[in-house]
Amino acid sequence: MALDLRKAGIATEIVGVDLNPENAAKAIKLGLVDKIEDEGKAISTADLVILAIPVTALSQLLPSVLDVVKKKAVVIDTGSTKRMICRSIAVHPKRGQFVASHPIAGTENSGPEAAFEGLFKAKTNIICEQEKSSKEALALAEKIFSVLGMNTIFMEPEEHDKHVAYVSHLSHVSSFLLGQTVLDIERDEKNIFALAGSGFASTVRLAKSSPDMWAPIFEQNAEFLSQALLEYIMHLQKFQYYLMKRDGKELKRIMKDANRIREILNGIEYKQINQVQEK
Amino acid sequence: MALDLRKAGIATEIVGVDLNPENAAKAIKLGLVDKIEDEGKAISTADLVILAIPVTALSQLLPSVLDVVKKKAVVIDTGSTKRMICRSIAVHPKRGQFVASHPIAGTENSGPEAAFEGLFKAKTNIICEQEKSSKEALALAEKIFSVLGMNTIFMEPEEHDKHVAYVSHLSHVSSFLLGQTVLDIERDEKNIFALAGSGFASTVRLAKSSPDMWAPIFEQNAEFLSQALLEYIMHLQKFQYYLMKRDGKELKRIMKDANRIREILNGIEYKQINQVQEK
Repeated sequence: MALDLRKAGIATEIVGVDLNPENAAKAIKLGLVDKIEDEGKAISTADLVILAIPVTALSQLLPSVLDVVKKKAVVIDTGSTKRMICRSIAVHPKRGQFVASHPIAGTENSGPEAAFEGLFKAKTNIICEQEKSSKEALALAEKIFSVLGMNTIFMEPEEHDKHVAYVSHLSHVSSFLLGQTVLDIERDEKNIFALAGSGFASTVRLAKSSPDMWAPIFEQNAEFLSQALLEYIMHLQKFQYYLMKRDGKELKRIMKDANRIREILNGIEYKQINQVQEK
Repeated sequence: MALDLRKAGIATEIVGVDLNPENAAKAIKLGLVDKIEDEGKAISTADLVILAIPVTALSQLLPSVLDVVKKKAVVIDTGSTKRMICRSIAVHPKRGQFVASHPIAGTENSGPEAAFEGLFKAKTNIICEQEKSSKEALALAEKIFSVLGMNTIFMEPEEHDKHVAYVSHLSHVSSFLLGQTVLDIERDEKNIFALAGSGFASTVRLAKSSPDMWAPIFEQNAEFLSQALLEYIMHLQKFQYYLMKRDGKELKRIMKDANRIREILNGIEYKQINQVQEK
């Protein structure tokens, strides 16, 4: 975000805050931020505060962040869950200065070196409880996401958390555990090297993701994610039942049904290509 | 394969056989084959027969293919399972003319339009029961796969089927059923469009694959695949247990363990890049 906002000329000075001094030093070296300050000073003097930390820490810190920000400052978060975060500042006197956001973009990599320009282009951003943000705060947040090239939509926190459990969090869980299952069996890793095709690489890519980032997301969205997992397991077990019965007809029917995902994926690609061209 | 073998000048005439007349016509139009012939004529006159059909049909047809091929002709298959196929011609008098192969390469697309040059480059090919092929047949098969840019390794059919159950077939099942789970819930598909990021697209990519090709593979490898599925389900259930307990420490431990896949995937990419550079 820092890279893109600076490039667009919207940020005159970018101040970084990081618990990890090594990452802080890298962020300066890579030109992501102009300087590093301690949390208290940075937050109490900034016009815009963007919070990108694990969601459990977000829910805990957000009230004290709002406590110290300037009167007209705006606070935006980027967390992948929204209920707990919105709840943490629901009755805060400065609630209006906060905009609950989830810019849906990222890779399986993390840390300062993982940053690159254009990550957010043509992706979707979700803002929750927009009516609880002040008109000015909402306008600035929308401008920021628009400059990043994102398409912002609005949702209630509950609705957001339920949908992302299916289309994002479940994908990550399935990938982590697919990776673990194969690693468990293929102790002689050379066999994996030799036999794994691009299909395997594609399905386990997300298993490279950061546990420090994802464990809090899963915990905060445990109920919806658990429901999604249960349905996934149920489908897997049904498939296994037909597999053991050698019921090729039923296996085919299930796979043909799943093939409908093709149009949806094409739709995603189509939408993204079109949005990029519009810019 | 036709595109690459022609380009390398190894095939002087390429004759196509296809049950589907529409696909046959497309194969000519796209320049994949020089002409289309009926099965009997094409197979009884060819010097090299490459069989690329669903694995159940392969096991059924292979004996009669060997029955009619010329005395010095070589038959290569490309099936994703190897036990049933090798068993089908185990005692055939022309067993020596057959080379059991599994070139591990492909995309989620099928049909003549899905063909492109260079698909096999730097990928792995597996030959099974090489001692049952004649020296001449094995030499030709190895040459063909080498021209395609593949690295051939040798394995017993049982070993092959077990490993691919984990590193290939399980990935496909997990992807098909992840697709189905999400499609089941997200009836209003616009929500998927809006929220699905590149992570989701990556994990469900294989759900676009052809049921006609994959149902027979799953059936032929039902025992190993069922075992792999059972282990996968067990891991998912364990994860769900810790999720419901909000045991972030244990969730993190599982994910950190799965993170080891990063080095393996990097290894795959590293190997492929190196092999491409060597050519």
